[in-house]
Amino acid sequence: MNIAIKNAYALIGGKIDRHSIYIEKDKIAGIDKAPEGFRAKKVIDGENRLVIPGIVNAHTHSYMAPMRNIADDLPFMEWLTKGVEPVENSMTDEDAYWGAMLAMAEMIRCGTTTFNDMHMHIFSTQKAAKESGLRAVLSRGLVGDKYNKSDRRITEALKEMSEGDNANGRITYMLGPHAPYSAGFDYLRGVADIAKEQGLRIHMHLAESQAEIDNLKKEQGLTPIEYADKAGCFDVPFIAAHCVKVTDSDIELMAKKGVSVVTNPASNMKLGNGFAPVKKMKEAGINICLGTDGAASNNTLNMFHEMSLLALIHKGVNDTPVCIGAEETIEMATINGARALGLDNVGKIEEGYKADLAILDLNTPSMVPRNSLLSSLVYSANGSEVDTTIVNGEILMEGRELKTLDLEKILYNADHMMERLGKA
Amino acid sequence: MNIAIKNAYALIGGKIDRHSIYIEKDKIAGIDKAPEGFRAKKVIDGENRLVIPGIVNAHTHSYMAPMRNIADDLPFMEWLTKGVEPVENSMTDEDAYWGAMLAMAEMIRCGTTTFNDMHMHIFSTQKAAKESGLRAVLSRGLVGDKYNKSDRRITEALKEMSEGDNANGRITYMLGPHAPYSAGFDYLRGVADIAKEQGLRIHMHLAESQAEIDNLKKEQGLTPIEYADKAGCFDVPFIAAHCVKVTDSDIELMAKKGVSVVTNPASNMKLGNGFAPVKKMKEAGINICLGTDGAASNNTLNMFHEMSLLALIHKGVNDTPVCIGAEETIEMATINGARALGLDNVGKIEEGYKADLAILDLNTPSMVPRNSLLSSLVYSANGSEVDTTIVNGEILMEGRELKTLDLEKILYNADHMMERLGKA
Repeated sequence: MNIAIKNAYALIGGKIDRHSIYIEKDKIAGIDKAPEGFRAKKVIDGENRLVIPGIVNAHTHSYMAPMRNIADDLPFMEWLTKGVEPVENSMTDEDAYWGAMLAMAEMIRCGTTTFNDMHMHIFSTQKAAKESGLRAVLSRGLVGDKYNKSDRRITEALKEMSEGDNANGRITYMLGPHAPYSAGFDYLRGVADIAKEQGLRIHMHLAESQAEIDNLKKEQGLTPIEYADKAGCFDVPFIAAHCVKVTDSDIELMAKKGVSVVTNPASNMKLGNGFAPVKKMKEAGINICLGTDGAASNNTLNMFHEMSLLALIHKGVNDTPVCIGAEETIEMATINGARALGLDNVGKIEEGYKADLAILDLNTPSMVPRNSLLSSLVYSANGSEVDTTIVNGEILMEGRELKTLDLEKILYNADHMMERLGKA
Repeated sequence: MNIAIKNAYALIGGKIDRHSIYIEKDKIAGIDKAPEGFRAKKVIDGENRLVIPGIVNAHTHSYMAPMRNIADDLPFMEWLTKGVEPVENSMTDEDAYWGAMLAMAEMIRCGTTTFNDMHMHIFSTQKAAKESGLRAVLSRGLVGDKYNKSDRRITEALKEMSEGDNANGRITYMLGPHAPYSAGFDYLRGVADIAKEQGLRIHMHLAESQAEIDNLKKEQGLTPIEYADKAGCFDVPFIAAHCVKVTDSDIELMAKKGVSVVTNPASNMKLGNGFAPVKKMKEAGINICLGTDGAASNNTLNMFHEMSLLALIHKGVNDTPVCIGAEETIEMATINGARALGLDNVGKIEEGYKADLAILDLNTPSMVPRNSLLSSLVYSANGSEVDTTIVNGEILMEGRELKTLDLEKILYNADHMMERLGKA
């Protein structure tokens, strides 16, 4: 749809000023100057509005949204074996679909326009992503010991990817070996080989907990980073989720190999894993992105919450107020994520870029005064300021009303699913 | 007003179940059973509603709300001398009033019903508190070197307190010596004497930064906690804000003297001061409360944000998911604060308690599923779920519409004030 956003506050090139933005089909077709012959089907008055690039949640498991709060404040193994796994094991594809739908609703309402997902029920998430209108990068969780050419799971995943509906380019795919403790070395090497052959990126959990480090050191004599590199994974663009427990030489290796790191502050704290060395990784030149992880360990998919955590905790950890500032935080939550996911024209407000935008209402206490809106976005907004969410030029929410999804039905199904699965 | 809230989810005695709540004038007059002869002027359908005790923000500086974002991501001394102080020094009483009004609007919208304030413009905050309908505990920031009986500031403050309108008991007062570095020992001893004479509580910043510790050690050979104790401050009920940098023996001393500690996680991280040893202080038996501090160092007064920070960061710091759980967090944000402030019948949903309540809308993704709403409150809510805020039996917000305040006027004045003061 052709949309004109007139004279709004807009975050362009790291600065917030008044601009008009012209959207033609799925793209930003002009800034401050409409393209020739442009006719707006819809005009949005930008008077009390702030337009930002749509937020990129660079690591999540959307189907887990209904698992939020099921096993909080418990030791990790109880959380996993008594909370998450019993539900996960009894989820049907339909359950996973409604779970993913709950996640989509939450993401759209908080201005997230792209998410990078790892999951088992690839068709469910794909269906939900297609219906919601969100931009999605999907990887199927791959788990195994030994790889051979006929490995069912990888073959299946590849087949699904190539045959899947990509919703006009909104849905792309990666390979998702789960983690060093669930993807054996030979298997991982096989995955890396396929990634190289097929030109696919890899998305993997790495160096999340101390137990992972200790076990791998004992079994393989390697850090998780060295393990993934040795298997050849870093020979393709690689997205490493977590990296909480990394050594200086791990950081050096990741920087050298161009690995992108997704930090997930809420999840890392909630599971008692601590704080990733984001400052150090950033200084080493690593592309740092931001993610919520799944709702079971967060317990929200609200990237505004995550931005505020990111900007605050590293000041606390490093004993300085000058660390991971507002501008860096927003970059990590937008353009850096898009870059990691291989979405070349996503994550910025710039002519030719995809029309993925979040529009915030400034008539709310958290956004007043307006003298430093960049700070407001990170330090005082809570996500509920998002009035309108646009992906690929399509309005997914306006006036906080979801346009593509039936919120009532999603809430009903997600709630009733857990009434059943919670007893499983 | 007599209000009946019918068959809502309600947090009572640490558990969330379905209940009906009957409000008569300023009090909770019945739970599940209306008092004799009760006639509701208003009935609230609790079907998709969660009622919680109104939240107690136990340490803030409300007039600073328009100072959010003015000097973020700067070294502490620049933040203070180039950001906060120039604005503070040029603020008139009217500016402080509009600043406090912005804070009130933000607090009401996030379910805060009581706040504990320290400030210079006591009449401005008092006026704003009176008009907003919030419950307020006010202390004037007291600063000086030597105390003598005619000390102008304390005398003034006491006079203001005794003469001030207390809005049917909604507004109470404390003494607020600012901090060890701004209240000299003799002065502080004078304040403590007055507190004892007048039966007043003391509210003070203590042990916030390493610089404060180092300077006081050099000058007095004491920790901030020892300093306040030696001046006699702990002989009255004492509310210590921050306590980030405390020793084991400080903790022991505070526990022994019944000091309440207000932790302010966002502010402590944002200014690079680190993480208060909340787990240790709690284990020592100290009454821990939660506060936002002023907006200049937070940058929001949203206690839901603060609750989530509190519950998450100490898991990260202590490397365990079992630390400061959801129930404890809510206690720290409600009843513990009320107890510290000497508000004996505030902070709980119980017959005879003040009708200070926040009612959340459950028809939103962050509150679904409903299988563990206690967790949702702390880990997935962001404050925007609050639909209705009631203080002293009066509805201050309903359907997210402010009832006592003119939001548009407040936002206009707060924004334009900073256009002027930002250039001061």
